[in-house]
Amino acid sequence: MIRRPTLAVVAEVAGVSLKTASRVLNREPNVAAATRERVLDAAASLGFRRNAVAADLARGGFSRLVGFITGDLANEFYSALASGIERELREHGLQLLTASSDEDPERESSLTGELLERRVGALIVTPAGADHSALRGEIAAGLTVVVVDRPAAGMDVDTVVIDNRGGTRAAVEHLLAHGHRRIAFVGDEPHLWTYQERSDEFLAAMRDAGVSDAERWVRSGAHSAAAARDLVVELLDARHGQARHGQARHGQARDGQAPEPPTAVLAANNRATVGTLQALRDAPGGDGVAVVGFDDFELADLLGITVVAYDAVEMGRRAAELAVARSADPDRPVELVVLPTRVVARGSGEREPR
Amino acid sequence: MIRRPTLAVVAEVAGVSLKTASRVLNREPNVAAATRERVLDAAASLGFRRNAVAADLARGGFSRLVGFITGDLANEFYSALASGIERELREHGLQLLTASSDEDPERESSLTGELLERRVGALIVTPAGADHSALRGEIAAGLTVVVVDRPAAGMDVDTVVIDNRGGTRAAVEHLLAHGHRRIAFVGDEPHLWTYQERSDEFLAAMRDAGVSDAERWVRSGAHSAAAARDLVVELLDARHGQARHGQARHGQARDGQAPEPPTAVLAANNRATVGTLQALRDAPGGDGVAVVGFDDFELADLLGITVVAYDAVEMGRRAAELAVARSADPDRPVELVVLPTRVVARGSGEREPR
Repeated sequence: MIRRPTLAVVAEVAGVSLKTASRVLNREPNVAAATRERVLDAAASLGFRRNAVAADLARGGFSRLVGFITGDLANEFYSALASGIERELREHGLQLLTASSDEDPERESSLTGELLERRVGALIVTPAGADHSALRGEIAAGLTVVVVDRPAAGMDVDTVVIDNRGGTRAAVEHLLAHGHRRIAFVGDEPHLWTYQERSDEFLAAMRDAGVSDAERWVRSGAHSAAAARDLVVELLDARHGQARHGQARHGQARDGQAPEPPTAVLAANNRATVGTLQALRDAPGGDGVAVVGFDDFELADLLGITVVAYDAVEMGRRAAELAVARSADPDRPVELVVLPTRVVARGSGEREPR
Repeated sequence: MIRRPTLAVVAEVAGVSLKTASRVLNREPNVAAATRERVLDAAASLGFRRNAVAADLARGGFSRLVGFITGDLANEFYSALASGIERELREHGLQLLTASSDEDPERESSLTGELLERRVGALIVTPAGADHSALRGEIAAGLTVVVVDRPAAGMDVDTVVIDNRGGTRAAVEHLLAHGHRRIAFVGDEPHLWTYQERSDEFLAAMRDAGVSDAERWVRSGAHSAAAARDLVVELLDARHGQARHGQARHGQARDGQAPEPPTAVLAANNRATVGTLQALRDAPGGDGVAVVGFDDFELADLLGITVVAYDAVEMGRRAAELAVARSADPDRPVELVVLPTRVVARGSGEREPR
């Protein structure tokens, strides 16, 4: 076992008193920001890990609260995650507190601070951006952090994701098997890791099937159903040769030719699926377009929508399980959990191209 | 203006030092539970209200966190509430922390304590039970509390609800106008205030239309879609004269006669609506049964479901607005906000009885 530096060494390197170093590393309030940063830097560079369990016992018991910082609770996916986390935490007598970053890295960082000042025992995060500096110092100082849905790039931290590439490839192959070649991909914001995984794999699977120009039908920005709907309406305009924009656009007319219409849509998240269905309902001939949605949703069954499904509640449960295990044993090996996906055929993905 | 007692008077009545009284009323930790209760009792009986703004300034600024204790975040209704609260709080530079009581009054009470120990600036609650003693003392001590969706019986507190009775009556009259007389009511847990309001008004509206035995088709317990589905399957069994239970049940066979089938269902919450739709899809002749759902939901439009709609996001927004106003002025008059409902016809509620 690696011998770790003591708190006294951290205090000395940071040039603060033992008491101040202890306050910072126990996440107590009322320490100047600059001092706090110096101590966390020293702790990080020295590889110091606070023994969370011992410290919690010393201050009168493990904090019962676990924080969950997530994108948008109004989205069925995140609320399923939250309910899985909550279920598991209750098994351990712990309570979940949820806050929304609204996918804003700055908000994520300020929320992290707010929750730590209030002594949450652990944090579960769906990382909003690529910069995780707020978390890095805290992890180095021994805070339990688990990330879920997306990895935190460059961070050595327990992670729960789904097999995004496997699910995307299965969806594309499902549509190809039903005769489609002109498949549109309607995805979320392009900076999100899940978007990148899914769109990359979409293009790779299409290339493997001999479709080399599939990026013509790739659309991003479907973070809301309304945005997705607009994107699909535009794709369907192309379908009927009624492109509303004079200028050539990425994915539309090339070399002056009329754009070719997609015969199928892979809606790359639940928002995109709802918007796609709304657009198809209103468009002439829209009911002939095949749809596979990434993310299952409660009414998909009633609506007959083929989806890439996985267990979001289980994702949350696994993340909570890791948070509990990490708190009990800060030195256990870091885990990456990848949950499987599967295509559930319900009708909309099995229409043949007209 | 009423002259209020000073902190010194509260301390004297409680038999504690000024400092201890201040600690309790400023919700600082590390005060014995018995002492805390004594101070809160004294404060309540004397009508003491901590000046929240002054106290917050004295301890370095208003707490940026507002707590929301709600039933179940996996339910679309509660997440819409949360997103409305969050939107309004952000306008004021505040941040929402959400926790789920799972409709358990004990959990609600322990969460209240946890959040207060962590100095949330205000609490917004959908009360789980009838006993609000945990909140009563805190409100007396000057904590800002707003209740939403259901009132807190006997408590003098800002409240945001919808017009449950108006919405229910409109739904019943809508079905009556389309020729229905045998209308089933499928509702949530009977101890919930919203259930009581909606079921009472359902029976009153039916009586007013000359249907005096409508309680035959009243069912409760539809807190999940699965439970609702089972209830409707049972009602439909009656519809086909295939009651599965030998003994007479409330709402079924009377005086040895075969039970009469409902021709329409008023599903009294969004869970009940989903379960009802699942049951009707699978039942022979189920597509002939009219449905009106209480609570709109995103895909109701695509599914053609007639609903009693209201603005859940606005409900949350109003609750947050009241919390901010109350924090700024603890002595302002208590407000009751009742938001309107309306029937949105989309097809399922306009089927005539077969």
